[in-house]
Amino acid sequence: MESILERINSPADLKVLNRDELNILAKELRTFIIKTVADTGGHLASNLGVIELTIALHYHLNSPEDKIIWDVGHQSYAHKILTGRRDEFHTIRQYKGISGFPKSRESAHDIIETGHSSTSISAALGLALARDLNKEKHRVYAVIGDGALTAGMAFEALNHAGHIGTDVKVILNDNGMSISQNVGALSRYLSNIRTDPRVHKIKEDLELIIGKIPKIGHTVSRSVERVKDGFKYIFLSGILFEEMGFTYIGPIDGHDINELVTNFKNADLIDGPVLIHVTTVKGKGYIPAEKQPAKFHGVSPFILGNGLSKREEKRPSFSQVFGETMVKMAGQDEDLLGITAAMPEGTGLDLLREAFPERFIDVGIAEQHAVTLASGLAKGGKRPVVAIYSTFLQRAYDQIIHDVCIPELPVTFAIDRAGLVGGDGETHQGVFDISFLRVVPNIIIMAPRDENLLQHMLYTAVYSGKPAVVRYPRGEILDIGMDEELKELEIGKAELLKEGKDILIIAVGSMVYPALEAAELLEKEGVKAGVIDPRFIKPLDEGFLLEEISKYRKVLIVEEQVLAGGFGSSILELVNELELKDVRIKRIGLPDHFIEQGSQSLLRDLYNLNTRGIKAAAKELLGNNTGDDLEVFYGS
Amino acid sequence: MESILERINSPADLKVLNRDELNILAKELRTFIIKTVADTGGHLASNLGVIELTIALHYHLNSPEDKIIWDVGHQSYAHKILTGRRDEFHTIRQYKGISGFPKSRESAHDIIETGHSSTSISAALGLALARDLNKEKHRVYAVIGDGALTAGMAFEALNHAGHIGTDVKVILNDNGMSISQNVGALSRYLSNIRTDPRVHKIKEDLELIIGKIPKIGHTVSRSVERVKDGFKYIFLSGILFEEMGFTYIGPIDGHDINELVTNFKNADLIDGPVLIHVTTVKGKGYIPAEKQPAKFHGVSPFILGNGLSKREEKRPSFSQVFGETMVKMAGQDEDLLGITAAMPEGTGLDLLREAFPERFIDVGIAEQHAVTLASGLAKGGKRPVVAIYSTFLQRAYDQIIHDVCIPELPVTFAIDRAGLVGGDGETHQGVFDISFLRVVPNIIIMAPRDENLLQHMLYTAVYSGKPAVVRYPRGEILDIGMDEELKELEIGKAELLKEGKDILIIAVGSMVYPALEAAELLEKEGVKAGVIDPRFIKPLDEGFLLEEISKYRKVLIVEEQVLAGGFGSSILELVNELELKDVRIKRIGLPDHFIEQGSQSLLRDLYNLNTRGIKAAAKELLGNNTGDDLEVFYGS
Repeated sequence: MESILERINSPADLKVLNRDELNILAKELRTFIIKTVADTGGHLASNLGVIELTIALHYHLNSPEDKIIWDVGHQSYAHKILTGRRDEFHTIRQYKGISGFPKSRESAHDIIETGHSSTSISAALGLALARDLNKEKHRVYAVIGDGALTAGMAFEALNHAGHIGTDVKVILNDNGMSISQNVGALSRYLSNIRTDPRVHKIKEDLELIIGKIPKIGHTVSRSVERVKDGFKYIFLSGILFEEMGFTYIGPIDGHDINELVTNFKNADLIDGPVLIHVTTVKGKGYIPAEKQPAKFHGVSPFILGNGLSKREEKRPSFSQVFGETMVKMAGQDEDLLGITAAMPEGTGLDLLREAFPERFIDVGIAEQHAVTLASGLAKGGKRPVVAIYSTFLQRAYDQIIHDVCIPELPVTFAIDRAGLVGGDGETHQGVFDISFLRVVPNIIIMAPRDENLLQHMLYTAVYSGKPAVVRYPRGEILDIGMDEELKELEIGKAELLKEGKDILIIAVGSMVYPALEAAELLEKEGVKAGVIDPRFIKPLDEGFLLEEISKYRKVLIVEEQVLAGGFGSSILELVNELELKDVRIKRIGLPDHFIEQGSQSLLRDLYNLNTRGIKAAAKELLGNNTGDDLEVFYGS
Repeated sequence: MESILERINSPADLKVLNRDELNILAKELRTFIIKTVADTGGHLASNLGVIELTIALHYHLNSPEDKIIWDVGHQSYAHKILTGRRDEFHTIRQYKGISGFPKSRESAHDIIETGHSSTSISAALGLALARDLNKEKHRVYAVIGDGALTAGMAFEALNHAGHIGTDVKVILNDNGMSISQNVGALSRYLSNIRTDPRVHKIKEDLELIIGKIPKIGHTVSRSVERVKDGFKYIFLSGILFEEMGFTYIGPIDGHDINELVTNFKNADLIDGPVLIHVTTVKGKGYIPAEKQPAKFHGVSPFILGNGLSKREEKRPSFSQVFGETMVKMAGQDEDLLGITAAMPEGTGLDLLREAFPERFIDVGIAEQHAVTLASGLAKGGKRPVVAIYSTFLQRAYDQIIHDVCIPELPVTFAIDRAGLVGGDGETHQGVFDISFLRVVPNIIIMAPRDENLLQHMLYTAVYSGKPAVVRYPRGEILDIGMDEELKELEIGKAELLKEGKDILIIAVGSMVYPALEAAELLEKEGVKAGVIDPRFIKPLDEGFLLEEISKYRKVLIVEEQVLAGGFGSSILELVNELELKDVRIKRIGLPDHFIEQGSQSLLRDLYNLNTRGIKAAAKELLGNNTGDDLEVFYGS
């Protein structure tokens, strides 16, 4: 028998269903998503939490005339399936496949592209203001999680929206979690609303009492009026949002389509900003995900029956080595602290939380605060390490400059997911950090080629007494073995890994081993390639690099980052500054467009960021010089 | 007779004064600051507002053991004078003089360096956490304005502080303004607390009523208990802060030293986060500043008697031309909008506010929201122009990448104060934007050499249909005359301004006219210099530039920006990519350290960013090549 889901090719098909059919559709959608993600991997728990909410939204609204904006966007799977992408859904997060986030090129229903957290209210307000100026009438609904509400920009948008009174609806999808457990006073506040019946009870109680107050004399009756007036102002749930200028509706069971639609209808009657507080269960309907929502936030393919990963036993990740090194260092130094912005598991800092909970700080999704908090801790004599993904560090750029680097405070930045990240695509690639950080004065920037250097670099950064960055890739370590003892590297000292003659390869971080392999392969073809690991992107080992570059005069530079303004550019600047002549430099890195989704290995292959690519580029660099050219070069 | 102020060389000298003497000191301080700023220029209104607050803080606390953190920091003049810098105070904001912001190199009392807004609570929390981990006992007080509270990162910090309950005191210095009039729901909320006695009255009323409720039966009395309990939770002023986990004290008259000290003592008795709401008058005690606090936020030297500027009639600023162009364009295109983050006067957008108030948006100090709001407006079919100073744009870097450039939405960024800004110093120099923006895909970046190009570039940006940036300097226009008609420039087209033979000067934006002047001077010495205005930093006019560079082969590049990753680097990348040989490039720009305060002209002279510097660099570039070298070059 054909399922209901198979009949849904656009939201219009949804509107003819009755309430029972909508509930059946919810079940089918849930199964469809669980089965697909078990095969492909992807975001699961957050998607299972919003199945009914998504159905209710598309049932109630007329997308794409009405606008639905998904904050972060990793919870848009049901939305994608209901808006004509059911049959391609199995390609999700794969190269040239459906994105795991809203993309306007995919569908007119993906009105605002997201990926990073907490942008939806700002974008929704922009759409709503445009609508009003255009004298249009459609509805604008943003869906934002309680975790995402922690970020400052969500507050900036609430503050503005509440002030100007524009008609915009914000659905607070409250599952009590961001990716991991939520933190912050706001989170506790929401939890109180959800769980404390007392607040509601007080309201009823007061109505009872008011009714019983004897109307004796002028004073009291005026008081009663004032108090009654005050109740409206005071005795609502969600007063925090009311104070911000929003009408608060909730809390509503986010798994009850009927209740959701009813409340959306009520919200539409209010002309102005409305916050609809919806409570959902992350991972709803799949027991393993309900039990471990953080684990099932983003998953690799898993076995349906038990939720266990299908992947082979694999090597630990760089994140794990980072976490272990933090624990090791914390054991030796009670001034060491670790700070995460809502990513304890992702960054590996959960290991520090377990070992030294009092020196683990999770600030919630609040990268700006994380960095400036660290500056205060550093000023107070502590040694803070802020672990943030490269792409999210973009949120704290000003704080790095203004609060850490101008006063030159010893804050260490552990930049995880630097380079290509894979299936998350454009919004998550960590490919700008070298460019935007190396231009900042007073900062040290390192990139380890393996996990052993990672631990030493972290140690070096923490005890450098300066702002220092260690950037390392997403993914598995190389398993080359770790030194027992942590050691400080000489700041700014590069390392010659292989002597050569014909060409010099300078490779950064993740590209060092591929460069070494390429050099080995070239050697078999009679080409002697030297390989240098600069280790320090800033400061550069200027004298050594210039000397080596002068020696080889054919130089290949490889970095997993955009070419513009990157490490290679800093070498061009150096070579130009010192007026080195007759040097040919070729750079491998990422081009000037946003890098699409796809597995890391596929993308690296696509952009020549692997052994094959390096070898080919080296040969091109060598081959472009005819013997004559070389003669001229040597003779000048 | 010696004044009291003359006896104050450190906060210790303050503590022996009686209350009357403290009040006299306040008067003396006020006069001292007004007189000095009338001579030197500087921030005035905000400083006059916190005279009593500063005295009360230093009377109550023991700085520097106790920590006082000034948000933004432009209101730290009284603090500086009371902490041993009275006699150098007249050098404020001048080259090698006292900074207009807290600087730890100046004094141990300047514990946290500021300049940008809204960082103080994060830094204070960091200091407080460090103190607790160090088992120390000192007090940590942050002073933040109500305007600064609008920024998301202040909320992030409140949310975190309120959650973990660390002992930190936040003084909300509420003058109802940021630099200009405040916006946002929070601002209205604070204003209600300040001005609406009803909230207080209700509290009294309820106590009266509660007393009158007949105790009849179990149900009601249980209700009464619950309600009484609820009052604590509900009927406080500042409930918004209470909900965030802070104890709220206030509002307190910020010009009453006695009341302030009393309340600080009370606050100290509370072990945990406390928000002390202090109301002050911006410009207090100087009538012209009280009347026009926005005008007297930052002032050039003025006449004491009437507050009028001492400066000669001067040319309009680039900001003013920007504002006028916005008005002109808005008159022709009803889809055009202007957005500012609390800087209507500074950016010139106040002109749009006057002419087309419905298409002027001030979001408060909220750069992140400003940019993402613009992306929503663009998606809704409008043409938003976001005007932000270069240094503050660093706050919205991720939003530019994630919300504007990835979806390639037509948002225009008008980047004011790009380049050296003068007396505000390190924290305010706009010297990184070319580097951090040009690496972002899908963006167009322009820099006008004069006001006429500014208007055309703004027009070009708005109708490019893409993310586009126009960066222009602080200061006066060149007064070269404006075209009547706005026109679209061909995207990516450079302009050859002067033909030459011996050397090519490529100068960006503010450096074009100095380059032309240098070329004139060189010509008198027999050197023929060509001058190119690239106009577009991105995309580059690659073919044309390469052709010209090949022709001259000696190239001088000048930009008012850090050298690292800047425009010059993009030329190096291009020349390297295309394997242009035998080209000598010299770059003039800013070095790899934060640029100190000083007048724009002094700093430009210091870093060779003027006619003299360009001429000298050109001669160096020419002179370094002996005839022999040139021979070899020509012969290869």
